[in-house]
Amino acid sequence: MNAEIIAIGSELLTPFRQDTDSLYLTAKLNELGVEVSFKTVVGDRRADLTSAAQIALSRADIVIFVGGLGPTEDDLTRECVAVALGRPLARSRQIIADLRARFAARGWKMSDNNLQQADVIEGAEVLPNARGSAPGQFIHISDAGGEAIVILLPGPPHELKAMFEEQVLFRLSRLTPARYIAHRELRIAMIGESAADARAAKIYKPRADVETTILAGSPGEVQFHLRSRAETMQQAQKNVDSLAAALEDEFEDAVFSANGESLEQIVGYYLQMRGATLAVAESCTGGLLAERITSIPGSSRYFLGGAVVYTNSLKTSLADVPSSLIEQHGAVSSQVAKALAEGIRKRCNATLGVGITGVAGPGGGTEKKPVGLVYVSVADETRTEVVERNYPGDRERIRHWATQQALDLVRRRLMV
Amino acid sequence: MNAEIIAIGSELLTPFRQDTDSLYLTAKLNELGVEVSFKTVVGDRRADLTSAAQIALSRADIVIFVGGLGPTEDDLTRECVAVALGRPLARSRQIIADLRARFAARGWKMSDNNLQQADVIEGAEVLPNARGSAPGQFIHISDAGGEAIVILLPGPPHELKAMFEEQVLFRLSRLTPARYIAHRELRIAMIGESAADARAAKIYKPRADVETTILAGSPGEVQFHLRSRAETMQQAQKNVDSLAAALEDEFEDAVFSANGESLEQIVGYYLQMRGATLAVAESCTGGLLAERITSIPGSSRYFLGGAVVYTNSLKTSLADVPSSLIEQHGAVSSQVAKALAEGIRKRCNATLGVGITGVAGPGGGTEKKPVGLVYVSVADETRTEVVERNYPGDRERIRHWATQQALDLVRRRLMV
Repeated sequence: MNAEIIAIGSELLTPFRQDTDSLYLTAKLNELGVEVSFKTVVGDRRADLTSAAQIALSRADIVIFVGGLGPTEDDLTRECVAVALGRPLARSRQIIADLRARFAARGWKMSDNNLQQADVIEGAEVLPNARGSAPGQFIHISDAGGEAIVILLPGPPHELKAMFEEQVLFRLSRLTPARYIAHRELRIAMIGESAADARAAKIYKPRADVETTILAGSPGEVQFHLRSRAETMQQAQKNVDSLAAALEDEFEDAVFSANGESLEQIVGYYLQMRGATLAVAESCTGGLLAERITSIPGSSRYFLGGAVVYTNSLKTSLADVPSSLIEQHGAVSSQVAKALAEGIRKRCNATLGVGITGVAGPGGGTEKKPVGLVYVSVADETRTEVVERNYPGDRERIRHWATQQALDLVRRRLMV
Repeated sequence: MNAEIIAIGSELLTPFRQDTDSLYLTAKLNELGVEVSFKTVVGDRRADLTSAAQIALSRADIVIFVGGLGPTEDDLTRECVAVALGRPLARSRQIIADLRARFAARGWKMSDNNLQQADVIEGAEVLPNARGSAPGQFIHISDAGGEAIVILLPGPPHELKAMFEEQVLFRLSRLTPARYIAHRELRIAMIGESAADARAAKIYKPRADVETTILAGSPGEVQFHLRSRAETMQQAQKNVDSLAAALEDEFEDAVFSANGESLEQIVGYYLQMRGATLAVAESCTGGLLAERITSIPGSSRYFLGGAVVYTNSLKTSLADVPSSLIEQHGAVSSQVAKALAEGIRKRCNATLGVGITGVAGPGGGTEKKPVGLVYVSVADETRTEVVERNYPGDRERIRHWATQQALDLVRRRLMV
């Protein structure tokens, strides 16, 4: 079975807004064994929406309309889909009563516009909306012209998701291929996408039972999305697990995540597991490493804090880097990275310390120390390690690469 | 004139990838006075792509195809558009020579697949691609069936943008309505979207000469996008400028940006202009404020650095907050925020110091100090200010709100 998703709203045809609901819907449809063949974005114009609906009905088994269910004149989805299907609309007394109750509960008066939200296409089941005023509709067509499923959903993502999970999923799963789908997502660090694909292709290409998608995540991260469909959940899971195991054998400890966790999450798990704490001293990454670590809820259990040291004097006063070292080797040097890691570790009384110094650009590069040159260091009580790298890309990418390297070094130190 | 943008690629029909090129293209088309009526996403399937092309040609004056111009079997755009137009393809010797030269320059051998990249639709102008192997095509159809413009562009954003600006823009502007379009983007801080709209509607609604779009940016930021089309550039500019002036009168100093600059950029301008420096001490925002400030190239001219102080002892050792103050009032208190701002300012010898402490959640909230409670403080030599706020939303949004508040306080301090 195939599906088309139609996102409705003139704001989605501006440079400022984008349909994102379709990503969620695609994931859900894929889990049901349904592929998405077309996505269409159309504005709030009667003729455009009606013809888009007609085209979709002619080429897809399942057509999902998103948006245009509100109470304003611009909300034309009910009306246009009814025309495209050649079915009349009838105003539902039940929905009117529900709408009135909803407004009354908030002490508001319902305006007459809202009445159009009670218009139901002939043959449709009404999908209640617990989070907004616009009910959805589900139409299963089965006649001489063939089978089709037409679904009308509200646009706001939290309304759409709740309605899909509570109202659409069970209806769709009765009508879609009843095969089971299992997923896995492996992530690897510090290997480029094409290098990763070159090594992985010989492993996943022969596996017809698993669909593999390789994606470049943020700089320094590659994701393998594995998906298998089978007659039983056990078989589907076995398929993805065996391919995941083969990929883990190939990439060994570059695999940091076996189920889609982020690198900062994994580092957090390891730190907690080891009862260890972390402190960081950042120059060119300017707080990004601390920000990534503290984006994880509960990170205060293992992250103590640290310093952002843009100036030489702060490298000395906040992270105890000897000023003579900076004079001798320059602020961007392996010696200063090492001193930052060791200094902040001691200053914060942490198990592990990280130091980062480099040239994030766009200015500040020299022939000897070009934009992209970064030193990342990790220290514990017994050993300090420094890596020197030349990262490609702009300021944002260089900063991200450097924090990714730092997190990966911490992960590897904790794995041992 | 109206346009349809067709994004081609099966990866764009997965849950993982999204067409973003169309946002750029929409902005450019709007500047030429062309509205986008439809956006379609279609996979690498011959029948689907051909029918999508036929449908688009029947309903849009300008059809832009993005992607599917590579050398693989999946790259079907040239072939399917030719079929939809009923025009033959011819292999261009010039393109073959260019491709061979391109490969030779890199010491690579060109494989035979690449030859299909030399297939040109009858009547098309070839658009050279300085950044990749796939040339684009531009077809101006003007016959008994009417006028149409068909454009084939490569998918990678940097290739697409360069080709559009260098090759497409001048061709399109000869063929599109020669009216001028002016833009302005105002941004305001710390006012909600609906509150901002309620105050702004009476100002922009009566103005038929300017199209106004209000968007919520990141938490604590609302954007007004103003666009006017007129017979002369002067008139278009005058239209947006007069509306911008009226909005600035209404929102006064909440307007931080008169041309779309970010708050961190504006704070950077002010700091440089005043010859002032900044240091920050962050607890709940965990480095996000420093990260935002240092995301701006050249921020080392005014940002010195600071401390991320997740633990009480680091608040004392890195930012000189008296431990008695923490014991007495708790780490999340206006007193500690004030001490963080003053302490880090002195410690770093900065003109201005910022302190942030709060409960970002999801855990750690109490009845007296719930999730979302944040104290933000700004200190200079003569005065320290603290604001207490209860921010809505999840950890990410609360952290962003707090940094936005901090940047806005710094901006206001520097405006005086």
